[in-house]
Amino acid sequence: MALAPNPRIGITLGDPAGVGPEIAMKALADESIRAMAEFVVFGCPMRRLVDLASQEPDFISHEHDLSAWDGHVHGVGLIHDLDELSGLTCGIPTKMGGDASIRYILAAIDAAKRGCIDGIVTAPISKEAVRLAGYRWPGHTELLTEKFGAKDVAMMFAGGPLRVILVTIHMSLAEAIRAVTADRIVKTCRLGSDAVRRYFGVEVPRLGVCGLNPHASEAGQFGFEEREIIGPAIEQAKAAGICAFGPLPPDTAFYQALRGRFDLIVAMYHDQGLIPVKTVAFDESVNITLGLPIVRTSVDHGTAYDIAGQGLANPTSMKAAIRMAVDMIHRGRRP
Amino acid sequence: MALAPNPRIGITLGDPAGVGPEIAMKALADESIRAMAEFVVFGCPMRRLVDLASQEPDFISHEHDLSAWDGHVHGVGLIHDLDELSGLTCGIPTKMGGDASIRYILAAIDAAKRGCIDGIVTAPISKEAVRLAGYRWPGHTELLTEKFGAKDVAMMFAGGPLRVILVTIHMSLAEAIRAVTADRIVKTCRLGSDAVRRYFGVEVPRLGVCGLNPHASEAGQFGFEEREIIGPAIEQAKAAGICAFGPLPPDTAFYQALRGRFDLIVAMYHDQGLIPVKTVAFDESVNITLGLPIVRTSVDHGTAYDIAGQGLANPTSMKAAIRMAVDMIHRGRRP
Repeated sequence: MALAPNPRIGITLGDPAGVGPEIAMKALADESIRAMAEFVVFGCPMRRLVDLASQEPDFISHEHDLSAWDGHVHGVGLIHDLDELSGLTCGIPTKMGGDASIRYILAAIDAAKRGCIDGIVTAPISKEAVRLAGYRWPGHTELLTEKFGAKDVAMMFAGGPLRVILVTIHMSLAEAIRAVTADRIVKTCRLGSDAVRRYFGVEVPRLGVCGLNPHASEAGQFGFEEREIIGPAIEQAKAAGICAFGPLPPDTAFYQALRGRFDLIVAMYHDQGLIPVKTVAFDESVNITLGLPIVRTSVDHGTAYDIAGQGLANPTSMKAAIRMAVDMIHRGRRP
Repeated sequence: MALAPNPRIGITLGDPAGVGPEIAMKALADESIRAMAEFVVFGCPMRRLVDLASQEPDFISHEHDLSAWDGHVHGVGLIHDLDELSGLTCGIPTKMGGDASIRYILAAIDAAKRGCIDGIVTAPISKEAVRLAGYRWPGHTELLTEKFGAKDVAMMFAGGPLRVILVTIHMSLAEAIRAVTADRIVKTCRLGSDAVRRYFGVEVPRLGVCGLNPHASEAGQFGFEEREIIGPAIEQAKAAGICAFGPLPPDTAFYQALRGRFDLIVAMYHDQGLIPVKTVAFDESVNITLGLPIVRTSVDHGTAYDIAGQGLANPTSMKAAIRMAVDMIHRGRRP
């Protein structure tokens, strides 16, 4: 039996003024990480990286312009299409940093479309820097969705003790309430159920679907969404063969999941899912985008501007994101 | 030096069709609990209790009608003003159960007003049963606030690794967003800061005040409330001498609190605070009402109708609520 080819992972460095370059270099400095896959880093020239990350990247075997790249990935290579980031101030959101971070991602998307990489692992970008650079995407997920022309995508968190998928993501809480529709809930349940089966080996995933309101509204006393939107969506999901329970009182749903009652929690809004994930598993949890033609994972923290460029950043979450992407690529290849 | 008198604790049994009677009896069956205070139980006649809780209440020294009670508390006594609960169905919300649970609380409030007890510990009621019984209070807090004529009250959770106070409580998420005002935030900060100083011995409590929106809106990208309401409220609180930080991104605020960065987290809505509290400390956490003329604590779980009347209920949270009330009464007496 022929061995499956090594996964080819593209790493985007995120905002160069944040901790992204440092955690990427620290993660790749770990030999056990380098042994898992072939890596190509989409980022700025290495001189800058060395300055920013205070790391000697002697494990990087080659460095070249995007336009000159032959599309092959061997070991750890650096690809860039930015000449310099001269004058970049570390630790604050800037137009220059926002612009660079978007260009790294666009280059990785292009490489994925050409079939050069199997997965993308992203370091954190700053939404504010991205906005300063004139882009409108509030985060990676929206950018990847648009550029890959994906229809239904969802943000999922896994790797720690909780698996959570979000029905809505980067919008105000008031907008999120309006964006919770039965259609979106059913699509999220389907993406989540499929992913838990495919990537985490659970034959019939049990989904715990949260309510929107306190106590899941206690029979309509604090809101109508459970009765009119979420309950019917759960019935639709069940009719489609998905093992979904709810609407669950949000404050106890995650405790029940921790005790093994559910394989995945479906959260209605960003903080409903992210508060428990980050509280119980800050470094372990990996952000996964479902619904793209390739595997995509990300660290679950931000640019950490306050410690950027000081050599203090912890690569645990980046390593977890890389391991998760490699695992998902292997599992996704199984029949 | 004379010893301080033993705290006198009133326990209300909550919905008799839920686990309240059982957890109260199991908690009081613990001799270390009984040694901490004098107890008076506001509930139904003991024959019913025995049936419901499957416990032999031989530690209960006397039992009498509310009208015949002399107001003295010795050991563990049972007070009731309900003749019977004949035909009560265990495990579902009913008019009879809702009516009884409210009457237990009203009796305890009356005893507190007469100076017969120093604190009230409440077992869970069902908001639906209370509504079926024709009452409009969505929970204990609102009932206690009204009957004590309290002006500013707040719901706080403590006892586990997180201390959290809520700016808004039992209302739909959409209503909670509208109810987050600078005035309410400042009052909640003041009640919380005072309570952490008085009851938990922290000289200058550090309050972490959450934003409302994902990432605390990232400089206004996902909502205006941080800039227009929460930020100014934090400035007001600081001007009043409160050590308040924020608006914090809600998804990392609790992680930071767990690492010792804050003594109290101020959460804007019910699930923002309750999801992390219940996820990391399901049984340890105690619900505390601040702003009443007496100490009031409660278990942090519901009626658990699914296991009521089967002897399966866990009294850990009830014991924690009793210990917390006793501690608070002792600490509150210090100059």
